[in-house]
Order: sequence, then structure tokens, then C-alpha cells
Amino acid sequence: MSSYKYAEELKETVKKLSDFLSLEELHRQRYKGESLPSEKQLSEFITLCRSLIFPGFYGSPDVCDENLLYHTGINTEKLFELSAKQILAGLLFGRDTCDKDFDLRSLYELAEQKAIDFVSYLPEMRRILSTDVTAMYNGDPAAQSKAEVILCYPAIRAISNYRIAHKLLSLGVPLIPRIITEMAHSETGIDIHPGATIGEYFAIDHGTGVVIGATSIIGNRVKLYQGVTLGARSFPLDENNNPIKGIARHPIIEDDVIIYSNATILGRITIGKGAVIGGNIWVTENVQPGERLVQAKAKP
Amino acid sequence: MSSYKYAEELKETVKKLSDFLSLEELHRQRYKGESLPSEKQLSEFITLCRSLIFPGFYGSPDVCDENLLYHTGINTEKLFELSAKQILAGLLFGRDTCDKDFDLRSLYELAEQKAIDFVSYLPEMRRILSTDVTAMYNGDPAAQSKAEVILCYPAIRAISNYRIAHKLLSLGVPLIPRIITEMAHSETGIDIHPGATIGEYFAIDHGTGVVIGATSIIGNRVKLYQGVTLGARSFPLDENNNPIKGIARHPIIEDDVIIYSNATILGRITIGKGAVIGGNIWVTENVQPGERLVQAKAKP
Amino acid sequence: MSSYKYAEELKETVKKLSDFLSLEELHRQRYKGESLPSEKQLSEFITLCRSLIFPGFYGSPDVCDENLLYHTGINTEKLFELSAKQILAGLLFGRDTCDKDFDLRSLYELAEQKAIDFVSYLPEMRRILSTDVTAMYNGDPAAQSKAEVILCYPAIRAISNYRIAHKLLSLGVPLIPRIITEMAHSETGIDIHPGATIGEYFAIDHGTGVVIGATSIIGNRVKLYQGVTLGARSFPLDENNNPIKGIARHPIIEDDVIIYSNATILGRITIGKGAVIGGNIWVTENVQPGERLVQAKAKP
Amino acid sequence: MSSYKYAEELKETVKKLSDFLSLEELHRQRYKGESLPSEKQLSEFITLCRSLIFPGFYGSPDVCDENLLYHTGINTEKLFELSAKQILAGLLFGRDTCDKDFDLRSLYELAEQKAIDFVSYLPEMRRILSTDVTAMYNGDPAAQSKAEVILCYPAIRAISNYRIAHKLLSLGVPLIPRIITEMAHSETGIDIHPGATIGEYFAIDHGTGVVIGATSIIGNRVKLYQGVTLGARSFPLDENNNPIKGIARHPIIEDDVIIYSNATILGRITIGKGAVIGGNIWVTENVQPGERLVQAKAKP
Amino acid sequence: MSSYKYAEELKETVKKLSDFLSLEELHRQRYKGESLPSEKQLSEFITLCRSLIFPGFYGSPDVCDENLLYHTGINTEKLFELSAKQILAGLLFGRDTCDKDFDLRSLYELAEQKAIDFVSYLPEMRRILSTDVTAMYNGDPAAQSKAEVILCYPAIRAISNYRIAHKLLSLGVPLIPRIITEMAHSETGIDIHPGATIGEYFAIDHGTGVVIGATSIIGNRVKLYQGVTLGARSFPLDENNNPIKGIARHPIIEDDVIIYSNATILGRITIGKGAVIGGNIWVTENVQPGERLVQAKAKP
Amino acid sequence: MSSYKYAEELKETVKKLSDFLSLEELHRQRYKGESLPSEKQLSEFITLCRSLIFPGFYGSPDVCDENLLYHTGINTEKLFELSAKQILAGLLFGRDTCDKDFDLRSLYELAEQKAIDFVSYLPEMRRILSTDVTAMYNGDPAAQSKAEVILCYPAIRAISNYRIAHKLLSLGVPLIPRIITEMAHSETGIDIHPGATIGEYFAIDHGTGVVIGATSIIGNRVKLYQGVTLGARSFPLDENNNPIKGIARHPIIEDDVIIYSNATILGRITIGKGAVIGGNIWVTENVQPGERLVQAKAKP
Repeated sequence: MSSYKYAEELKETVKKLSDFLSLEELHRQRYKGESLPSEKQLSEFITLCRSLIFPGFYGSPDVCDENLLYHTGINTEKLFELSAKQILAGLLFGRDTCDKDFDLRSLYELAEQKAIDFVSYLPEMRRILSTDVTAMYNGDPAAQSKAEVILCYPAIRAISNYRIAHKLLSLGVPLIPRIITEMAHSETGIDIHPGATIGEYFAIDHGTGVVIGATSIIGNRVKLYQGVTLGARSFPLDENNNPIKGIARHPIIEDDVIIYSNATILGRITIGKGAVIGGNIWVTENVQPGERLVQAKAKP
Repeated sequence: MSSYKYAEELKETVKKLSDFLSLEELHRQRYKGESLPSEKQLSEFITLCRSLIFPGFYGSPDVCDENLLYHTGINTEKLFELSAKQILAGLLFGRDTCDKDFDLRSLYELAEQKAIDFVSYLPEMRRILSTDVTAMYNGDPAAQSKAEVILCYPAIRAISNYRIAHKLLSLGVPLIPRIITEMAHSETGIDIHPGATIGEYFAIDHGTGVVIGATSIIGNRVKLYQGVTLGARSFPLDENNNPIKGIARHPIIEDDVIIYSNATILGRITIGKGAVIGGNIWVTENVQPGERLVQAKAKP
Repeated sequence: MSSYKYAEELKETVKKLSDFLSLEELHRQRYKGESLPSEKQLSEFITLCRSLIFPGFYGSPDVCDENLLYHTGINTEKLFELSAKQILAGLLFGRDTCDKDFDLRSLYELAEQKAIDFVSYLPEMRRILSTDVTAMYNGDPAAQSKAEVILCYPAIRAISNYRIAHKLLSLGVPLIPRIITEMAHSETGIDIHPGATIGEYFAIDHGTGVVIGATSIIGNRVKLYQGVTLGARSFPLDENNNPIKGIARHPIIEDDVIIYSNATILGRITIGKGAVIGGNIWVTENVQPGERLVQAKAKP
Repeated sequence: MSSYKYAEELKETVKKLSDFLSLEELHRQRYKGESLPSEKQLSEFITLCRSLIFPGFYGSPDVCDENLLYHTGINTEKLFELSAKQILAGLLFGRDTCDKDFDLRSLYELAEQKAIDFVSYLPEMRRILSTDVTAMYNGDPAAQSKAEVILCYPAIRAISNYRIAHKLLSLGVPLIPRIITEMAHSETGIDIHPGATIGEYFAIDHGTGVVIGATSIIGNRVKLYQGVTLGARSFPLDENNNPIKGIARHPIIEDDVIIYSNATILGRITIGKGAVIGGNIWVTENVQPGERLVQAKAKP
Repeated sequence: MSSYKYAEELKETVKKLSDFLSLEELHRQRYKGESLPSEKQLSEFITLCRSLIFPGFYGSPDVCDENLLYHTGINTEKLFELSAKQILAGLLFGRDTCDKDFDLRSLYELAEQKAIDFVSYLPEMRRILSTDVTAMYNGDPAAQSKAEVILCYPAIRAISNYRIAHKLLSLGVPLIPRIITEMAHSETGIDIHPGATIGEYFAIDHGTGVVIGATSIIGNRVKLYQGVTLGARSFPLDENNNPIKGIARHPIIEDDVIIYSNATILGRITIGKGAVIGGNIWVTENVQPGERLVQAKAKP
Repeated sequence: MSSYKYAEELKETVKKLSDFLSLEELHRQRYKGESLPSEKQLSEFITLCRSLIFPGFYGSPDVCDENLLYHTGINTEKLFELSAKQILAGLLFGRDTCDKDFDLRSLYELAEQKAIDFVSYLPEMRRILSTDVTAMYNGDPAAQSKAEVILCYPAIRAISNYRIAHKLLSLGVPLIPRIITEMAHSETGIDIHPGATIGEYFAIDHGTGVVIGATSIIGNRVKLYQGVTLGARSFPLDENNNPIKGIARHPIIEDDVIIYSNATILGRITIGKGAVIGGNIWVTENVQPGERLVQAKAKP
């Protein structure tokens, strides 16, 4: 079982893999001791948010009336510290920390300020997420209780992560929001870009394959089924033939719209209030309020 | 790095988040020491089931002929205890445990009874799951061996969890079955409601995005591809405009049917024996035995 | 809380579950001490590959210019050892190790040889994966930086695992490649068979529900959206009515093709260079170079 | 690397080791699901006690003025639950739980009652342990601060465990107290039997090898050095030539006594108030108040 | 918080510390992939031995009559494998594995043979350790039950490790036995060299500081108290003024001897049957059977 | 199993335990986010030191000639970072961090400076510890190899920790050195104060119960046996009757002295070069060079 005969090959591979040139643009000189976005810490961060918003459903199963204050106290503080660290990691990412004007201390203070803003927003976030729970409970004949919705429905996890990420994005935190929504994407198959704007009483059923693009705008009481895409149709290109970044390119979904499974809505079009979009169809033009759109008939 | 300047904001947020009023309907007074459905314990429960059904493929890699008895003995006992606890958690959930007529001891005895029924069913479950393995091995030209099917195919994980959850549901266990199928949903993208009825030799290929609704009935030797939905079409509403719960609203799929990728079958319709449904179509009416249904021609 | 009353039932179930007959074809006599494919070890293996290819993005966050050599040295060696073990596990799987001609030592030497070939290929793999990162960064207006693509985009994880698995398959390693792509399938909802052939600058957007079959051939600069299937249409059957294994049955996608969400491309057809396939359609015939194919119009 | 050739030997050994006869008196029929004294849980129990008594020195390093209430709240509750469980384990140990008159529920209630008594005693225990800290800080010229005493001095750990164990013993809890003092014995080399009675301002310097027997009585402001034994001299024997249990057989050490290293004090004798016992001597007779006893002169 | 200014110092230190010359005799070229004595594995090994010998007191708390066979089966097999590995590590240690005559395979077979001999000896070891438990229970008025002795008395741990290590030494295993007794030394303060020969019904009370040298011979029914040394008096020196290894140099303690705390017995002398040695004395000459030896009187 | 009836008692205890007054002098206001001495981190710190000094004996078992550089590189860096953190924790301890002149940044820079000094000293520490290994190997007829000494002898662990702690103390680090020697005390029963001065080729045999006081001075080639105390005799008292801190009060042991087990040497006396002190005696006066001192004869 000796591997000495391969010592040369290993040495050669190590040399190639630690050659900075081969890292090309993937390489960046990092500030020593710099906070990095950490999947493990962000996962703990999400668990803390969920356990503060839905105490007893996520996090410690020991929460009860007598100790709610204690648990909330500890978790709020932990969340503040964890979010300050990860927000700092986001702010640092992409900065040239070797730059002599770079000032870590003021960046850390900025991170703390954003962290306290985020934490202070949690009570309002609980209120909004409660409307989502209500929408999913009322709209699904298979749901036995709100508790079942909170504990089992993947959409609640995806929407929680989205609302957390969206808040962080609106506070000007880079990178972290996207990691957070991708964590929910991996867990649920639901891909909501943190840049999207989504109203209250939002429901997604089953959810696998749902895609909601970065500039989408969704009203109140909207319901989506699995596989629905709110995507971009085409991208204006720059002189290098690459898409220009930052242009509004995803649909506007007005209040009370229902979109059935695997429907694809593309481009900055508007689906009017109360419209119903049938499954497995491709929509690239405006739909009038109240309109019902279905697939061309299948044939035997 | 002091956070003392935010002490007031944190205290304020803690106060808001531990205010019972803000928890609205999310709040329930819990029995102190009450068993709660635990994702970690249920995950161990699923691993135990899989390792008893497919020894050597899941669980300890040390199982061999000489020690199969020992491993089976230990794992069967562990499974019995774990399932009694989680079944109790399901039974307790939603009960008013502060009610003075509440009797934990008799509830625990009930849980143990359901647990022993569940554990005693495992040999039969192995037999049925073997037919599913056979169906997937025979039906997929890419499958090299049954071992590959058991080890790699996500559908085996999803169908195992479904068969476990369905048995628990039929024993009258609340909540737990749904958590178990959602665990497979997250792992595989396949969403089978524990209430569905599914025959032997069942196959799902690739699987991501498959949805099988709560009142679906599926015969023997049925095969589904990725993205297939067996859903509800519309829900009779009650006086509050919410769907009435508990009505049969999903399709009946008879023996030997094949449904290709991303097809959507909606409503309590019947897809007749041996029918073939093409991909990416929306079906809301009965399909005759042997019929072949495909999408309207795409156009250049 | 006594369970003694169920002692008999438990003993009976243990007996049934450890009966070799009930294991039917699921049973195989294993070599004592035999390496087995281990999900935990393979997960560590994948993390090592990713951290060697994208140092600082995966694996230890402490990598910086000063210590890149040390980290690369340790990780390359670890990877060599881990891959030798898992390759051996793959080679052993399905072998009758009780056969008296069976020679573990020479099999282990074979595994080591394949392992050193795999490890030596990593620098080239880094080069190719860099082209994929570039394609995804350039092609997505929502991408802020290449770092974001590497850290957040599920497609990078799925394509990394595919390229690793494909290399192992080409080195003649059984079983392990498929487990590796299924790990990415579970993590991302993207299902790429290790047998597929895929060119450089490959991009998948969102990705959930993508299926790329075992004999698919994909050129350079191809882009797929979520839910795209490159599948088989029908399988020639053998005398037992089961599909014949090993026949080319999936599409050829030429350079510069774009396929939009939920499109299904079936059979050994060719999608010509630069063609564009619209979403939600089912394609079973050749498409000419440069052609644009879209769904039949939906109707109100 | 096959071990099949030893299959027979292993089977034979298993048979012998699982033969009840070979377990003789070591065997007892256990109540199924019975709580057992658990080293891991007791270790957590000790950590909780220490962190409640000396917040910020043991347990979470995050305790500060702002959150002391929250941490204390959570830890007090945890301690109550953990101690109820382990007290129950102690009460169950040695009971014939198969006896049909055995009533687990009333035993559990008894355990809870003892647990609340124990927890309610912690504030007083903090007061007493503070006197021990003060004694050790004042008496040792090497001590830089009380914090150093609490954090570093093994005697504080041994005395904490003793005071905890002694309280439990006085509440009538079997077995658990002894396990707790043996945990400190292993950690510090200081062996204090939980049955001993020890006053305030108690100090032990260095401590390795100290033994304090079950019926010892120690006054206030006593100081012991390493290796001191307070032991029994001889035991009255019963008809089987075994020592009779439960007789007072260890020394009484009055207030303000100092005993130097490796001195051995044996039998129910009294060391009078303020006496000083030199090192490495064997004392088996009463020592008068204020007396100073030293070793016979060594000789070159 | 940059550490770049120290990059040079770190590089310099790394260079010095990885200089083979500085390792002098501490360095040895190791066989790649060689098993090494592992404290973690040996700790697991000890736990397995203890749990097989005293089922229900060590190891899984779930052992009961119904499942004793299963637990014993699994643990016996695990123990066999673990001991084969660690015995191999012991055999390899100090071997020049680069020597071309070196044959790993035959060494592994030798290790397995010793391992099966060790495992097969466990039932007899249980019998002997039971006599030790009995001796300690009968001889200590503070012992409430044999269970308390097994669970709490450090001497049981030290003597178990000694009996295990002594057996391994007698099977010709290098290094490992000493590591095992030192593990007990650290846990209990009792230092028994694996080379000592010790009879049945052996008791140590309290134990801290006991030392039993490599060539000691101890009869049946001997009892030692804390701090007793059975040591060497002087060593014949070789030409380099270093002690000659391997000469009998520790005491012979005949049956039924009691030695009180901190007594020091030095040299190859004999303490005759039934003798009693008082505490804190230094004995370097033979003691007659039945003799009682005590310290010169202390003086006020 | 409800504990609600105890809710009041728990609340009351929480109130008492979180009352600042009850914490008296144990309380200090801590800087938020302040590094604290962490047993876990210090344990990792010790393991890193040991693995850098004795590569292959402690730490990763994978170290070999080919990768020594990589392992040393990674571990040296880790050690630097860990020691900077813990040195900072030591420096912070006892500081009033709420003081407005307090400057964390400059304290951290100070900690880093001390850390680099410590790390740079490691090569020299390896040289000195090698002399200790040599002394113990040569002086003990039971030692089979230097490897056995490094791996098994508790004295090596105690002396390593002492030499590390002594270096830190000489760099002006508070508190941490004492924690480090107490960790070895707990592990080995050997209590060496970090303030002691100890020469090369130092040996301790068995070691349990050895105490070496803070102002002891020990020459080269000294050997101690178990239970030896180098202690203080009496302490000059201050006006409050407490010992005055910081006075030289422990023995000076000159080169080539041997002290046998359980001997107690007290006060600032000198044991002259080459003297031999017998076991179990109490020495409080100077001993001449070459003198041999033994216990008064025991009597039958």
C-alpha cells in the first residue's frame, strides 16, 4: 500500500495547483484574518431567524410560555452578533483590503449598524410571514393546521429566506443575500432572487422548480404552483455581446393572480389583477386583469 | 467592537418578539416536557428504516452474513423506540395538554401500539420496495445493477419515505407522515403526499419536480418521468371562500401507465390502463385505456 | 413505559428481517473488511476537489497567498488517498471477493493508479471549470462577480461534480461516478449523467429539473435553463421486453445552442449549431443550425 | 485481510460473553427504557451548576450584565430537568422495576421534588463556595486574583463537586453523589467522599492525592495540602469477616487546622482547633488544640 | 489585525521546524499509510472491552436481557477489528518499513492472530475482574453495592486497563500495553506497569499515586491504599552509566498483604503472606509473613 | 411529568442567581465581544505545540518526510493565530475594558508581538525537550525506546506544558500560563508552577503528586519521583494576616540531584549538587552536595 512511487506525480500536481497564474481571475489577495461568508455560519443565522420568528417550530423544542423571554433574549443577541460578522464578510468581499486607505474598524461599525437594523426588523417580518402562512393554510385543502404549514411546507422555508435576504439586500449588504436564497433553493427547489419584490399573503404550492427573477414585482395574495418561471425574455447586449446588467426584465404580477404549474412568464410584462394562468404554457405578452389563459389542446 | 450602544435596540426587539400577542395563532401553550416532532430524530428514523430494509446499502457498512442478525436485532429495537417517541409527538401535537382530562400514559401506550404495528410491517415493506427496485432496474437502460438503483436513484429514497409515511398515516399518526415525505421532497425534488395510494413495481425516472397529490390512486407497474404533476384542478369552496378539505380531487392512474416529463394531470380523472401521456402537456379529462396523448406540434 | 409486552413481536420481526431469503437479489455476500462506497467519504472527496480547484471559495477559509502551497500540498495528498479508497470500493462492488482467484492487492494497486491519474488531471479540470464560470458570469445580467458565480450558483456545483464523475468514468471506475452526480442532483436539482459528453463554456441558469441523459453530447458555449430535459425517446426492447442497455439514445447539442426552460428534447436527434429552443416544448426531431423553435400560441 | 477464518472463534466468544451465568451478580434485569446514570449527562449537569454559580468563568463566555438574566433563566431550567432525570436514574438503580407494585410515576414525582430542592439551594451554594475562593486566594501567595483561583485551581472544582454531591446525598439521592465526586477525583486527584461534612472557607492547595473519607467532619477555615489522607484506621468486622458498613470511622478536624502534604490522619480521632500537622506523618491519636506535630528527624 | 508583518518570521520558523536535522533521533521515516497507535482508537478499544465485560455499566445503556446477544455480537466483532488494527500499529512501530524484506501482509496476519487470542480471552478476564469487584465491595464499608464499585471506583478502571494491557503484553504486542495503562494512569492517578503480575481479588482503595513497577509480583487478596509505591531501589548500570534494562527489581507481595497509604516498598524484596505495612513508610528489606510494620512515632 | 407546579420556585431561583449583589467580588463588567481564556482553544493550542515539536507523535498521524513541510506550514500559522487570540484574552482579563482610554487595537498588536516571539521560540523548545526525552529514556530501565517515552510518559506532557507556560510567562502573559500547567496537572497529576525555573535533561518518573512551587529553581540532570513536593515552608504575613505575595520561598535544587518518591522539600533551602534524597521524608534545611538523606528506620 505504499504510495511512494507516486510522490513525483503528487509533487508536480501540487506545484501546478498552487501556481497563481493557473488561478487567473479566480485569484484574489485576501486580507489576513478577513471574515469570509461562511455557509455554516449562515445556516446557523437562518436557523436563528426562523426560531425567533416561529418560536417552538424551529430552534429549541424547549420554548414555552415560561421561558420565551429567556430564549428570545439569548437568540436575539446571538443573531445580532452573527449577522454583524456575516454582513462584514459581505462588505469585505471584493474590497482590496491591502489598500492603505482601507479601514476595517469603520467597516465593522457599518456592519453593526446594518445588523441592528436587520434585527430590529424581525417583529415586522414575523407579521408578514404570518400572512404567508395564512394564505397557504387557507388555500390548500390538504393542510390540516397552520402548524403543519410552518413545519412541513417547503414554501415557508423558501419565502422566509427570501424575506430575510431581501431585507439584507435593501440594507446594502452584498453577496450574502444571494447565498441565503440559494440555500433555500437547494433545500426546496424554489429559486427566488433576493432582488424580487413580493407582497403579503404569498403562497407557493409544492414549489419545486419555481424561479422568480431579480426584477420581478409580485402583488398581494398571489399564488404560484410548482415549476412556474418568472423569467427574462431577452437581454439587451453591450458592445462585447454580453447582457447589460441591472435592467428591469422580469414580469409584474398584480394582486390575486394564480399561476399553475410549469407555466413560464417571460419579460417585463404585466399579468393583470386576478388573472389565472394555466399550466405548462409560455407567456411573453401582457395578460389582462381577470383573464384566464390555458394551453392549446393536447391531441391523442 | 463594543455593541453596548445597541443595548436599547436589542432590549426593545426582545420585548416585541416575546410578546404573545405578536405570535397570534402561531402561539400555543405547550405541555412541559412534551415530545415534539424532531427533524433530527425523524432523519435517524428514516435511516434506520432504510438500513433494515436494504441492509448493507444504507446504515452500517459492516453488515455481512455473519452479523446480520445482530445488526437487525439492535436496529429493530432502536426503531421501535424511536418510532414510539415520534408517534407520541405526533399524537400530542395540537392536543390541549393542560386539559385536566388529558392522560399522557394512555397516549403513550397508544403510541407504542402503533409503533409495534409499524415495525412489524417492515418485512412486507421490504417485499414491496423490492418490486420498485426491479421496475426501475428493468426499465432504465442506464442502470448497471440493482445495487446502483438502491444506492443512487433518488426515486428509491422518495418512494421509501412515501411507503413509510403512508403506513404511518394509515395507522392514524398525525403530522409525522407529512414531515417524512417533505424530507424526501427536499432530498430528491419528488413530492409525494403520504395520503396517495400507490401500487407495486412503481418507477420514477430522474424525478425532480414530480408532484403526487393527497388523493391520487396509482395502480401497478406505473412509470413517471421528472416534472409530472398529479394535481387537483379546482376546489369546491366553503362559505369563507376557502377550499373544502378532504374531497377526492386528484387523478386515478390505472396499471401500466407511462407519463412523460413535465406532463400535468389535473382533477379526479382516470388515465386508463396502459395509456401513455406525452411530455409537457396539461390533461384535465379522462384518457382511455391504451390511448397515447402528445403535445400540439411546436413550430419554428 | 415498559415495552416487554412487545418482546415477542420484536423477536419475530428481527427473525423475518434477517432471513436471507427475504433479501432475494438484494443480498450479496460481502468480503469482510471490504471498502464500501461511502456517502460521507465521497462528500469529503467532493469538498477536497472543489477546494483544490477553487481555493478560498470552498474548503478552508484561511487560504491566502502565503500558505497556498501548504494547503494545496496537504489537500492533494488527502485527495489521493481518499480517491484510491473510494475507487477501490467501486472496483470491489459487484466482485465476488470470496472467489479464490480474487487478488485484493493487485486491485488496490489498480485503484491507486487510477487515483493518481485522476489527481493529476485536476489542473486541467480547473482550466475547464473556469470557462464555465466565465460563461455563467457573462451570460447572466444578475451576476455581480465571478466570485458570486462560484459561491452561489448551483450550476457550478452540478457541473463540477459532473466533470469529476465523468473523468472517473473515463478511467473505468464503476458506481462511484453515478453516486457523485446524484449528490449534486440532490443538492441542486440538476441531474447530469456522468456518461454525457459536455464541452467548455457550459452554462445552466437556475437549473432545477434539468436532466442530461447518459449518451448526450453537448458542444461548446451551450446554455440551458431550468427544467430542460435531454432524454431518450424510446428504447429498443430485448426478448424480455426490457430496454437494451448501452445504445446511443440521447440528443446531440451542437455549439452555441440555447434551450429555454422546461423544454424537452428527446431521442438521438441533433440540435444544430446556434439553434434556439423555446420553453415548455417537446422536441423529437432534428433542428437545423440557427433555427428558432417556440411553443404553439397559448389561448385565452 | 479476511477475517472469516476466525468466524467460529468470534461466535464462540459471543456465546460465552452473552451467557447470563457468566455475569453472576453483575447481572440485573433492567426495566426497559429505564433512566441510567449517565456520565455524559452528569458532566453536563456539573458544567451547568458551575456556570450558574460562577457565571462567565464556566459555561458560555458570552455572559455579561445585559444578558445575565437570560442565561440564568435558560440554565436554571435545563439544570432542573437534567437533575430530575439523573435523580430518577439514581432512585431507579437497584430497584426491582419488574415488581408489579413498582410505580414509575410516583418515583418521577419524587425525583422532581428533590430536583427543585437542589436547584433552589444553588444561591446558598454560591455563597459558601465564595468563601472557599476567598480562603484560597488569601492563603496562597502565588494567587494573582480570585479569577485565577476560580479558573485554574483544581481544588475549586473538587470542592464544587463535593458540595453538589453532598447536597444530593442529604436529599436522599443514591449513587449519583458518588459518581459526581469521582468525576472530580479523576479531574483533580482529590477524592472527597460525598458523605463528609465540610465547613466554610475550606482550602486545598495543589491537592493531588488528597483523600477525605465518608464520615469525616471538617470545621471552618481548614486548609489541607496535597496528599493528605483523612482515613479510617480499622473496621469492626461482621460474622463474615467483612467490615460493618455505616460506622463513624474518619477524623474530626476542628476549625482553623492546617495539615501539610502527605500527612495521614486515621480513625475517628479529633484534631483540635488551630492544630498544625506536619507533612509525611501518620497520626492515629487525638491532637490537642493548637498543637504542632512533625515528622521524626530524617538522617543523613 | 493584519499579520503580514510577521510573514517572514513565520516562514523562518517553518523552515527550522521542518528541518530533519533538528528532529535528530525523534525522526523516523514512516511507511506511507502505516497504522499508528491512536489514542482515540485505543480509547474506543478500552470502552469496548469494558462494555463487553460489564454490560450495562459501560457502553450502551440500552443493554438488557432481550438484546444482550445482539450487543455482544456487534461489540465483539468491533473489538476484534479494532484490536487487530492497533496490534498491527504496535508491531509496525519501530520497524523499518522501507526495508525490502518487509512484508506487511504477514504482519497483518500475525496481528489478527493475536487479536483473536485477545478477544477469546475476554470471558476469563470477566471472571477475574469479578473477583476484584468482590474484593473491593467486601473490603470497603463505604461501598453500597457492587454496582457502585463498578460504576464509581477508579481502581476498577485502572485494574481493567492493567489486565487488558498485561494480556496484550503476554501476546507479544509492543508499545500498545503501555499506552493503555498510561490512559488509566491519567484517568485515575494509578500507575500499574503492564509487565507486573497480579493475582485475583485485588483491591486498591482511593488509588491516587499508586505505582506498581514493571517486575512486581502480587499474590491473591492483596489490598493497597492510595500513594503506595512498589518501586525499584537501585539499578545496576551499564558501561555508559545507564541502568541495565530487563532485570527483576520490584517487590514480591505475597497473598493477603495490606499496604497502607503512601508506603514505599523498594527493590526485589518479599513482603510475606498476610503482612501489614503501615502508611508513609519506606521499606527496603524483606518483611516476614504476618509482620506489621509502622512508622516511627511522630513527635509534637 | 409537568413541571408547572415548580414554575414559581424556578423563577425565584433565577432571580436570586441573576442578582449582581450575590456575585459580590466574583462579578466583573465585561467588555462585549471580549476574548476569554478558553479551555477548548488552549487545549488545541497545546496539541498544536506538541505536534510541531514532536511531529508524528502528536497531531496528525499522516506526517511523513514528503509532507513535513506542508504540515509544519499550516500548523505554525494556526498556532500563531491561536496564541495571539489567547494571549489577548490573558491581557484583557482583569482590565477595565469600559475605561475610555482602553485601546483594544494596540492591545491586540501587543498580543501578536508576543505570539510571534512565542512561535519563533519553538525550535529551541524542541531542542530542550529532546534533552528531557533523552534523560527519561536513559534513566528508566523500563523504557524500550524514545518513542515510548514521547508517546506514553506523562512527565513529557507535564514538562512540555510547563516549558510552554514558562515561556509565555516570561513574555509577560497573565493567567494563560497557569491554565496551561493546570491542564497538565489534571492530565498527569504533576503540578509544576509556570514560574519555576528548570534546567535541561529534566526527568520525572511516574509523577503523580509531584508539586513544584512558583519560585523553585532546578538545575540540569535532576530527577524526581512521584509525590515529590518542592514547596514553601512558611509565608511572611502582611498586616491582614495573609501571606505576602512574590517572595522567593521554594527550594533550589542543584545539578544532578535525585529525589525519591513522596519526599517533601520545603522552603528556600538548597539541595546541593549530586545529593540524593530518600523517599517519604520531610526536608526543611540545606542538604550538602553529594549528601544522601533517608527516612528514620521503620519498626515492626
